Amino acid sequence: MIPTITAFAQSPDRGRGLARDMAVRWALEEVGQPYEVRLLSFAALKEPAHRALQPFGQIPTYEEAALTLFESAAIVLRVAEQHPGLLPHSTDARAQAIAWMFAAKSTVEPPIVERSMALLLEADRPWHAERLTMLDERVRTRLDDLSRWLAYRDWLEEAFSAADVVMVTVLRRLGGSGFLEEQPTIASYVARGETRPAFKRAFEAQRAVFAAAEA
Amino acid sequence: MIPTITAFAQSPDRGRGLARDMAVRWALEEVGQPYEVRLLSFAALKEPAHRALQPFGQIPTYEEAALTLFESAAIVLRVAEQHPGLLPHSTDARAQAIAWMFAAKSTVEPPIVERSMALLLEADRPWHAERLTMLDERVRTRLDDLSRWLAYRDWLEEAFSAADVVMVTVLRRLGGSGFLEEQPTIASYVARGETRPAFKRAFEAQRAVFAAAEA
Repeated sequence: MIPTITAFAQSPDRGRGLARDMAVRWALEEVGQPYEVRLLSFAALKEPAHRALQPFGQIPTYEEAALTLFESAAIVLRVAEQHPGLLPHSTDARAQAIAWMFAAKSTVEPPIVERSMALLLEADRPWHAERLTMLDERVRTRLDDLSRWLAYRDWLEEAFSAADVVMVTVLRRLGGSGFLEEQPTIASYVARGETRPAFKRAFEAQRAVFAAAEA
Repeated sequence: MIPTITAFAQSPDRGRGLARDMAVRWALEEVGQPYEVRLLSFAALKEPAHRALQPFGQIPTYEEAALTLFESAAIVLRVAEQHPGLLPHSTDARAQAIAWMFAAKSTVEPPIVERSMALLLEADRPWHAERLTMLDERVRTRLDDLSRWLAYRDWLEEAFSAADVVMVTVLRRLGGSGFLEEQPTIASYVARGETRPAFKRAFEAQRAVFAAAEA
């Protein structure tokens, strides 16, 4: 049974692998699971047919036989639970990897997304510079903490796991911001992720969608 | 083996059950698992001893034999996996409940927290009113979507689950904002959660900490 995921027909990230299908594609590539992709227009995202799968009208979703799932990290976790290679065997170590998945989405990602939204939506407001300083500080605090954790580690836990798939995709949203250049430990961590063949295949797959839409 | 969690010695929520130990306490009460609490000052949160358990210097943490965990939703999931009653039996339904846990923390909570932070940190800035309008709109969009999902349901999935523990605790942060009054479906959902005896025990336990600190 080949699962089907959804992705943007025309991703606002212009093929840079920043949309949330990227983590799901990467996880599927890591475990060698082929998948199909259903591309959705922005209008289709908000239609009832899609909202039945994704109550918030977002991508990605995941359909596999009778199961439908949403939330990229939950899909990555499902893939990791159904295939070997993305979670430790021990129950305790597995719980710790899942904790890092929540940390990525609920502690590290929000200030990064908030900063991106301010750049996108508030750049013309008179307060923009002052607010950006506050937002930068919040991102930097999280990165400093994460950097301390990664200082003596290649991956969040003992071996590469689903947690790294989620965390690296979250951190990649900082590309171009200058933060990764400030944080060599985190930059190396992201680069280690991006070097993995499964990451590269996933990246090319999502880039091909954007290239086809442009052509 | 009685697990130990950490919580604020003096919670900034003044005992209203909005700190992130609340979901963990609630889950533990739902499954009837006694627990101990180690209270931490704000200074202790940032010390190396605590950061070894919680890299971002936050509460709660969870210690049980050799396992240490952080991120409240990950702890709730661990509790739900170790005890019956908080997750469906079927693997597919279980994955869907976990998806809602991620949705609560990564899709619903961030705009709510962002709005709280703006009220707390930016109320004296000239941009505050204009920004608050934008933030209100983002919160309202999420609540409208969630309300549509809950319109014909008592709980996020077929029965009460760990997902509801996490979602209700996230939504309770809106108390006093007026949003719950605008959203009767969501207000009823939160009230259903708050009526559960396990919620009440957890709420009283965290309030007792605050009362003792005040006394």
